[in-house]
Amino acid sequence: MGMKAGFFWLGFLLACILASTSADETLNLWPMPVSVNHGLQTHCLRKNFALKTEGSKYADGSGILKDGFSRLLDVIDVSRAADKLTNFNNFPMLLGLHVIISSSSDELQYGVDESYKLSVPGNGNPNYAQLEAQTVYGALHGLQTFSQLCHLNLETRIIEVRPTPCTIEDQPRFSYRGLLIDTSRHYLPLRTIKSVIDAMAYSKLNVLHWHIVDSQSFPLEIPSFPKLWNGAYSASERYTMVDAAEIVRYAQRRGINVLAEFDVPGHAMSWGKGYPSLWPSPNCSEPLDVSNEFTFQVINGILSDFKRVFKFRFVHLGGDEVKTDCWVTTPRVGRWLSKKGMNKSDAYKYFVLQVQKIALSHGYEVINWEETFNNFGKQLSPKTVVQNWLDNSVPEKVVAAGLRCIISNQDKWYLDHMDQSWRDFYTNEPLSNITDPTQKKLVIGGEVCMWGEYVDGSDIQQTIWPRAAAAAERLWTSYDKLAKDPEQVIGRLAHFRCLLNQRGIAAAPLLGYGRAVPTEPGSCYKQ
Amino acid sequence: MGMKAGFFWLGFLLACILASTSADETLNLWPMPVSVNHGLQTHCLRKNFALKTEGSKYADGSGILKDGFSRLLDVIDVSRAADKLTNFNNFPMLLGLHVIISSSSDELQYGVDESYKLSVPGNGNPNYAQLEAQTVYGALHGLQTFSQLCHLNLETRIIEVRPTPCTIEDQPRFSYRGLLIDTSRHYLPLRTIKSVIDAMAYSKLNVLHWHIVDSQSFPLEIPSFPKLWNGAYSASERYTMVDAAEIVRYAQRRGINVLAEFDVPGHAMSWGKGYPSLWPSPNCSEPLDVSNEFTFQVINGILSDFKRVFKFRFVHLGGDEVKTDCWVTTPRVGRWLSKKGMNKSDAYKYFVLQVQKIALSHGYEVINWEETFNNFGKQLSPKTVVQNWLDNSVPEKVVAAGLRCIISNQDKWYLDHMDQSWRDFYTNEPLSNITDPTQKKLVIGGEVCMWGEYVDGSDIQQTIWPRAAAAAERLWTSYDKLAKDPEQVIGRLAHFRCLLNQRGIAAAPLLGYGRAVPTEPGSCYKQ
Repeated sequence: MGMKAGFFWLGFLLACILASTSADETLNLWPMPVSVNHGLQTHCLRKNFALKTEGSKYADGSGILKDGFSRLLDVIDVSRAADKLTNFNNFPMLLGLHVIISSSSDELQYGVDESYKLSVPGNGNPNYAQLEAQTVYGALHGLQTFSQLCHLNLETRIIEVRPTPCTIEDQPRFSYRGLLIDTSRHYLPLRTIKSVIDAMAYSKLNVLHWHIVDSQSFPLEIPSFPKLWNGAYSASERYTMVDAAEIVRYAQRRGINVLAEFDVPGHAMSWGKGYPSLWPSPNCSEPLDVSNEFTFQVINGILSDFKRVFKFRFVHLGGDEVKTDCWVTTPRVGRWLSKKGMNKSDAYKYFVLQVQKIALSHGYEVINWEETFNNFGKQLSPKTVVQNWLDNSVPEKVVAAGLRCIISNQDKWYLDHMDQSWRDFYTNEPLSNITDPTQKKLVIGGEVCMWGEYVDGSDIQQTIWPRAAAAAERLWTSYDKLAKDPEQVIGRLAHFRCLLNQRGIAAAPLLGYGRAVPTEPGSCYKQ
Repeated sequence: MGMKAGFFWLGFLLACILASTSADETLNLWPMPVSVNHGLQTHCLRKNFALKTEGSKYADGSGILKDGFSRLLDVIDVSRAADKLTNFNNFPMLLGLHVIISSSSDELQYGVDESYKLSVPGNGNPNYAQLEAQTVYGALHGLQTFSQLCHLNLETRIIEVRPTPCTIEDQPRFSYRGLLIDTSRHYLPLRTIKSVIDAMAYSKLNVLHWHIVDSQSFPLEIPSFPKLWNGAYSASERYTMVDAAEIVRYAQRRGINVLAEFDVPGHAMSWGKGYPSLWPSPNCSEPLDVSNEFTFQVINGILSDFKRVFKFRFVHLGGDEVKTDCWVTTPRVGRWLSKKGMNKSDAYKYFVLQVQKIALSHGYEVINWEETFNNFGKQLSPKTVVQNWLDNSVPEKVVAAGLRCIISNQDKWYLDHMDQSWRDFYTNEPLSNITDPTQKKLVIGGEVCMWGEYVDGSDIQQTIWPRAAAAAERLWTSYDKLAKDPEQVIGRLAHFRCLLNQRGIAAAPLLGYGRAVPTEPGSCYKQ
């Protein structure tokens, strides 16, 4: 009962804060764009609001823009709008959205131009909103922003666009804005993964880091070594390569790259279920056998299969938490180490660099967890991106060494840490302690990590959202536009989590820590 | 840490039980049909598996069957199947499903024939599965059962149908198999409600009891009294009548009726936000003012608006937890009571019977919570169905009085009670203590209740499922087919919850109580 009362007071306090901070209800955009100039008027949408692309250099042969526009109409609830506008509606009407894209290419690669400019109404034609972008992916971001300007008025059943007139110029602060999912500790159904991707697009995150395999299970089909997915939990808790291609396709059409990871030489016990010779011995089954050439043949096979499906510039090779004891205690491997004159640290380095080399030979640039940098520093390939997770002083060392870095410090950006609230996610600054402008550029972005030990298809969405969205604003919005005090954004973030709920994403209330549930009756906007 | 270890052991025990009970993996149907005769062979589906309706008397003008068949293809993952069957597939192939429906009507009313007979392959044509049903709604149930016989083999990417040959004859034990949702304590987005309806169809539940309004908020548009929804939490946390009609339409096309409820005279404080004269006084705002003729005019208006949209035979009028003090302490109401010679109990009865009369005049039969029966017994309209929730001895009294009864005892079937596990939901027998065959027939079914104080769009699915599915088997399956010991069904229910996850429904693990989350890495089928 004490707990209940405590929650009540927390709720009451939160409600007060929410009430006091949602004053500018006209501008509930998430993440906040770089620049917004707006009046205080309202436009309205014609029911058959249309897409116009005259003057665009992008032909949209694959329908990415067309589909994005259809999804826009869906999420703004055009189907709920009245067929005929009522007489008493005096708002100027928008007949459609005029999208002008400068680049004819729809290649989605790291660093693709994601900027856009949105004008409601457009400068040329007052009956159209106008969206200009370098690429179709910038345009998709613009569509997301436009969707957040649309409000279905349930009294009139008119979709109102406000505030207008409005000019938004926008582009991300970081090129890499990631979310990790882990399909080894628990299998995630394809529909669940797609739904996570949907919500990433709403939040303008752009990299789905797919931690495919780990010690517990190996769910992905690898055509070159077809017994690897014998390490899956069950016959159905698996992904074919066609499934993987479908995830990549689905994400790409939403402007999201998929970063595939296998984590070697540790975190790989499940590999040996199909190929036991990958284990040092049946009794000592991790890390992968460094002494066996077959280990690297398998890795080469995986990467050659990956290359057909995972088109992102980067592949993630893991490299963290390697406990090398098995190599020493297994006589066969121990003899190999002696022969090569390596101790176990040397062997760890040998393994990591060997795998980097194979990945580079397939045309990938590589990402590794920070232990590889902590141990081998500049001996890593210069094409390495180091993903920080343990030690907050590592990023400055990484960039000082001239390597690129992704920030995922576990004390703030680990979604499986239920004691981290959205405030922790919001306030975590990737560039803290880095002042040199050249070094700053080497921090390519950040990533929130949804490790899978305690989530599956039943609870992953509310564990990710809205906390990942808080980080998404940190990664998207220009530094000077970010709130110094997270309480300043609470009303706007609450609004965004309600928007996610309306769109069918089970984002949790803000009150409380990770995966909190509502603690009393009330409005979505105040919880 | 003690907690973690405890969870671990619980998990270990559960895993053992699951491993030991999932022996007959060939027949993971939920809910279990009345009669299943099957061999041990396997058929496979042609990729363009087709619907055939020759000889059917049902024309499907509204496309209910066609859409149901499309959804079947979707949930069995036809899109993941290989385009061409491989050479090494020696299973006999099914070209399609032949559906034969006897009734030309698609009226979905209480007591509609829901039986079906499914043969794989059919008797006449070995290249088709055959589904016979009296009504399209029986056929929809047959499609659900068929979907559970289909298994995508990820090695061959063939959809296997097993076990075959197979003949299933099936019909529900109870005509009323309900789930209550509550949109007053928290607003539920339309997409959330539709997703709940999807999962109801998978479980063969057939009544969505929509507890629309309560003291906390009034989210529904009532055209006759347009200020009523001023009692909503916010401008957007509302449903238009068009939205309501869309929910009814969506449910009906899945064989599910919508039971609309307003709960009077208690649980109605939010009504007075738009019409303060419905309150006894601003300081004493519940129950609705019994002395004011306007109160009954409003109720009449609501019911006349309901009648256009909610086509189910029944309407729910609430009537529970009425604290009548405000009527006595408000001088104006007190004077009215004196004038009428009523005490507060008389007035409660007057109110309930008056509202019943209005509902009956609109052609509805009525459902009330058990307090109305406990207080007024046979003075209720003989068209009353009493919904039991408090006292387990009430159902026998209700049916002894010749009234119909719905079972929702809160000690077993309240989904907001987190301490009730799926075992409680499974073992709760609606006919316990009722022996007379005529009286048994008056128990028209049961309902699990998802009260909304602690759920919203973020957590409702895992709070409902899989526990509601456990109750669904109790309500569907013939008594002699039900497991006496719930441990006998744990493997099959775990399989069904994984199926829900695969279909995008966030059903929780079985381990633990309501809304449990996974407590360690592992297979969906063992959690």
